[in-house]
Amino acid sequence: MIIKIKKNAVQSEVANLLDNLKAQGYDIHSSFGETVQIYGVVGDTAKFDTRSLYAYECVESVIRIQEPFKKVNRKIKSEDTIITIKDVKIGGNNVVIMAGPCSVESLEQVEIIAEKVKASGAKILRGGAFKPRTSPYAYQGMGLEGLKILRQVADKHDMLVVSELMDAEHIDMFEEYVDIIQIGARNMQNFALLKKLGKCNTPVLLKRGFANTIEEWLMSAEYIMAGGNDEVILCERGIRTFEPMTRNTLDISTIPVVKKISHLPVIIDPSHAAGKWDLVESLSMASIAAGADGLIIEVHHEPEKALSDGAQSLKPKKFDDLMKKARVLAEAVNRTV
Amino acid sequence: MIIKIKKNAVQSEVANLLDNLKAQGYDIHSSFGETVQIYGVVGDTAKFDTRSLYAYECVESVIRIQEPFKKVNRKIKSEDTIITIKDVKIGGNNVVIMAGPCSVESLEQVEIIAEKVKASGAKILRGGAFKPRTSPYAYQGMGLEGLKILRQVADKHDMLVVSELMDAEHIDMFEEYVDIIQIGARNMQNFALLKKLGKCNTPVLLKRGFANTIEEWLMSAEYIMAGGNDEVILCERGIRTFEPMTRNTLDISTIPVVKKISHLPVIIDPSHAAGKWDLVESLSMASIAAGADGLIIEVHHEPEKALSDGAQSLKPKKFDDLMKKARVLAEAVNRTV
Amino acid sequence: MIIKIKKNAVQSEVANLLDNLKAQGYDIHSSFGETVQIYGVVGDTAKFDTRSLYAYECVESVIRIQEPFKKVNRKIKSEDTIITIKDVKIGGNNVVIMAGPCSVESLEQVEIIAEKVKASGAKILRGGAFKPRTSPYAYQGMGLEGLKILRQVADKHDMLVVSELMDAEHIDMFEEYVDIIQIGARNMQNFALLKKLGKCNTPVLLKRGFANTIEEWLMSAEYIMAGGNDEVILCERGIRTFEPMTRNTLDISTIPVVKKISHLPVIIDPSHAAGKWDLVESLSMASIAAGADGLIIEVHHEPEKALSDGAQSLKPKKFDDLMKKARVLAEAVNRTV
Amino acid sequence: MIIKIKKNAVQSEVANLLDNLKAQGYDIHSSFGETVQIYGVVGDTAKFDTRSLYAYECVESVIRIQEPFKKVNRKIKSEDTIITIKDVKIGGNNVVIMAGPCSVESLEQVEIIAEKVKASGAKILRGGAFKPRTSPYAYQGMGLEGLKILRQVADKHDMLVVSELMDAEHIDMFEEYVDIIQIGARNMQNFALLKKLGKCNTPVLLKRGFANTIEEWLMSAEYIMAGGNDEVILCERGIRTFEPMTRNTLDISTIPVVKKISHLPVIIDPSHAAGKWDLVESLSMASIAAGADGLIIEVHHEPEKALSDGAQSLKPKKFDDLMKKARVLAEAVNRTV
Repeated sequence: MIIKIKKNAVQSEVANLLDNLKAQGYDIHSSFGETVQIYGVVGDTAKFDTRSLYAYECVESVIRIQEPFKKVNRKIKSEDTIITIKDVKIGGNNVVIMAGPCSVESLEQVEIIAEKVKASGAKILRGGAFKPRTSPYAYQGMGLEGLKILRQVADKHDMLVVSELMDAEHIDMFEEYVDIIQIGARNMQNFALLKKLGKCNTPVLLKRGFANTIEEWLMSAEYIMAGGNDEVILCERGIRTFEPMTRNTLDISTIPVVKKISHLPVIIDPSHAAGKWDLVESLSMASIAAGADGLIIEVHHEPEKALSDGAQSLKPKKFDDLMKKARVLAEAVNRTV
Repeated sequence: MIIKIKKNAVQSEVANLLDNLKAQGYDIHSSFGETVQIYGVVGDTAKFDTRSLYAYECVESVIRIQEPFKKVNRKIKSEDTIITIKDVKIGGNNVVIMAGPCSVESLEQVEIIAEKVKASGAKILRGGAFKPRTSPYAYQGMGLEGLKILRQVADKHDMLVVSELMDAEHIDMFEEYVDIIQIGARNMQNFALLKKLGKCNTPVLLKRGFANTIEEWLMSAEYIMAGGNDEVILCERGIRTFEPMTRNTLDISTIPVVKKISHLPVIIDPSHAAGKWDLVESLSMASIAAGADGLIIEVHHEPEKALSDGAQSLKPKKFDDLMKKARVLAEAVNRTV
Repeated sequence: MIIKIKKNAVQSEVANLLDNLKAQGYDIHSSFGETVQIYGVVGDTAKFDTRSLYAYECVESVIRIQEPFKKVNRKIKSEDTIITIKDVKIGGNNVVIMAGPCSVESLEQVEIIAEKVKASGAKILRGGAFKPRTSPYAYQGMGLEGLKILRQVADKHDMLVVSELMDAEHIDMFEEYVDIIQIGARNMQNFALLKKLGKCNTPVLLKRGFANTIEEWLMSAEYIMAGGNDEVILCERGIRTFEPMTRNTLDISTIPVVKKISHLPVIIDPSHAAGKWDLVESLSMASIAAGADGLIIEVHHEPEKALSDGAQSLKPKKFDDLMKKARVLAEAVNRTV
Repeated sequence: MIIKIKKNAVQSEVANLLDNLKAQGYDIHSSFGETVQIYGVVGDTAKFDTRSLYAYECVESVIRIQEPFKKVNRKIKSEDTIITIKDVKIGGNNVVIMAGPCSVESLEQVEIIAEKVKASGAKILRGGAFKPRTSPYAYQGMGLEGLKILRQVADKHDMLVVSELMDAEHIDMFEEYVDIIQIGARNMQNFALLKKLGKCNTPVLLKRGFANTIEEWLMSAEYIMAGGNDEVILCERGIRTFEPMTRNTLDISTIPVVKKISHLPVIIDPSHAAGKWDLVESLSMASIAAGADGLIIEVHHEPEKALSDGAQSLKPKKFDDLMKKARVLAEAVNRTV
């Protein structure tokens, strides 16, 4: 951590600052520069709140040198994390495909879609039973009944289930019915929830908040891991920018960036990033080429009648075409789908 | 709601779309234009999910005409909402001041600060007992003990208490100890929590998410009001932009914009917007001049030792100077502080 | 164009508004809705400044239905534009590769790099002779001498030259020495310059401004085409977001989005998007998989000594590796590199 | 400048890096930390391109300590710059008001508006003769004729003239007819133009680009000052965010931030920030309260008929009301209007 002192700082205040840091166990390296007064603070600063030092009037700026995350850091664990659930591996050479409807609407609907996506190669069934909706008047999901449908259909087709958890009250219910607990973008910094997930035994798929930095995303994963749950899958689903032609802007760079600094698997949600079904194939292909460990794609056999997100759902036929192309592409980059 | 049809759309699909809308009770107004095919959909579209129509291949774009919010809408209730708690009014001609430390650290700390801010004119004591921290390793707050301290000190000084709720599990606890439940920026779209707040009898101070639009903010207020709790105070605390010299960018325009479209009171948090104490006065003055109904300001007598947010906390003397200037300014715009 | 009238509008003002529109030759379609008063304005509204109507106090909102661009619009010209320069085609099935140093530094430097990138498969030599630098104290480029070096080396290796123009004064010079005039992100809305480019006979590579929407980018291309120069190549180079781990955020979605609405070729600059050389390969692969018509990549044999952008320059060996992988990938998506 | 070395860096490359820096005249301070290897680089790094060091594979991050700007820096010149043109001072205790139409449309139009705004207290007449328009089909301005009209009317009413320059070819023309050359947001990083302005004798009003940081804005001012022209007025006009209810988001914090780090005067353009006339008063009041040195406001007697930006233009009566309120407000903050 580097501290730059203001030009006309009161030196007694600087001394006070340094004394406080030493009292916390940090070593202080002497200043340098003719016109600038700078100190290096050495020790375990990962947990230090650098902003707090601005409370000293003498401080001009504080710069963190050490990453604030530990357990997610590739410097701590250099090999890729591979999460194995039953016989499905997330991370590693295979590109795992999760597919299904935005919302669970009925047993028949999930059955029709699951059969199709399984046949096309998806191993994990997605579907929302509790839906985060901007409007209180919009469809809010089937709830527990929806989770039961997902479980029943997935078991029949030998698939895993991933579904979004919105309320900590439902954790036990989710642990019973799903294989992967999805945390949506809007709850990425719901710290009360993250702490409770740290006590779970179920893997967590953590979506990046739509305006969060990669560092903040990793810190949220750190919350879960710090609680004792090491099985975190990161999912990029697009960030908010001022471009209105897509629902969000897929930040494709997260793939190589996160793989460089963390050992956790990274998957992409092209459906929410694009917001429109006719962009999903292009973004899916880009994601595989960039090195993604998986995709989570919305599929609906009758998107016009979908209770949510029909706009971005692929029909089963289009999803099947995509899977065929994805397989050829994956081979070209030495991966398998 | 306006629907624009693609140039080479299959007309049988268009007919299907229109039939579905009619079946939902909407009136369809005939298309117009030589080169464009457009339909107007009339009825109560406030609750309609416009994006869902993109599921039809024939649809080029859908444009909402009616606002999606109802209870927060000034068109529904034209006079300003004034929330009265004990003898304090929020909304109306007075500019209410909330002040106190970022975190409750001890009875002594809160006592020292409360006495000062009350003397300077603050009517509401702020302080965090449960803290949302980006890092799991940062100070997380005193919890229930902190709420009890706030209540005790506030009662002594005849002040109200506002404090942030992070976990729905704590709602009963908050209803017992605080006068206003604060919902932080990161929980603005924690819909599970918002629904439960709709069942409370305690007023809610709803901060705008750091990357949310004004419409989304109002929709979150709508969640609370739709549940039955009409007492919502909106609080702008800065949005995220690419400007690194401030922690956030205070969106001062929210004041006139929200006052035009909603009847709810709007207050400003200059401390979180600025992130640095030496910008707080300037932003506070701007907020009052722009028409804010209140300010929520962080004050600490020893910011260098604060367990959180010392960087943006004013010392009591500076807060007192600010209050004096604010009073003169308020008078110049026919308000009182 | 749709005009929504305010709830309590003065009807004489509405009548005045409608009369003015009719006087400009537009047809007005009658209003609809019980609670809302709406008008459809029919005619050639592509050139109409929709914001101007907010000057009427009675207007609540104005919504454009027709795209404001014409010549770039795929609705006007449905087949892909392919720009042929000598024997190189930009657009169509081939993915064209442009490569070279950020800045021209010497004849020797360009010669070394050009020989390498040509051998690896690049057909177009890039290099900056006039450099846009944030600081007036940074290296500003070799100027005319640099252009001459590019031309000489490119001719020797049977390559084309692309280089950035910053000053309209230099247009004649560029027309003499380069095959493609590059317009940088910061000049995307330098309308005085765009108008002059419309009078050129040289193809223009138009970079997207780092905070511009796709529509604004297309409008800038429209400026050039409206002036008579139809040969515009669009280049996405990353947009500014709040993510600090990359220099910019590559908006990979621009590829399918622009190809849907425009007929112009779209290429990607992964070097400026990433800002770091170790991300370039991943972004290049993603771009090809998403359907890009080309790549423009910075290559330097001694990036540590580069006078600009060494951070994001690939060494020739890494560029060659990338080209080999790109060729395999392109084949998998039925393209050639 | 601080350089952090990667964990497993090749030490010979590190040695090479340090040698190169020493060869450029910098002092290197020894590394520190048990787990991290860090170097401090001392000397005049203001002109150093810190990004260039990422070209070394061994470098993990480079952090600038010294500001990259010199002449605009308050550390170099501590007292406020006051620009005096004829008898008008910009900077200092007075809040200067610039007002007039968006576009010059005719002598009569400018005459009517100038008379009104002068009577209300504006000292500087604004008006566009060359207009930056997103669409090539939109009204582009009267050109030279417009400048002559501004000059003639301003002289009659004893006002100064400010008008936007878009093309370096017109600099001589502007030096003849206007008192302040305005550079629009889209040209803030048109470095070819900035360099030429550095050779002018006319003060420059430099608008902040709509997606530029404060540091970049100051660097553009530095370009002008480095060329020899010290008279730069900074103008904030709103930045682009994802909030659609305002045309731009006024970054009110720029006022205290810029005044802390630079000595140049800062004025605000509430008209472009808001994009709607009914928000202009609120933003103007906020700006004065926050410490702005001036305002530039669009006024039109018939905004419905304005050839551009009628949406955000105040009618003279509303402008006069605003000026009255502004005068009372300014007094409350010990300024004059």
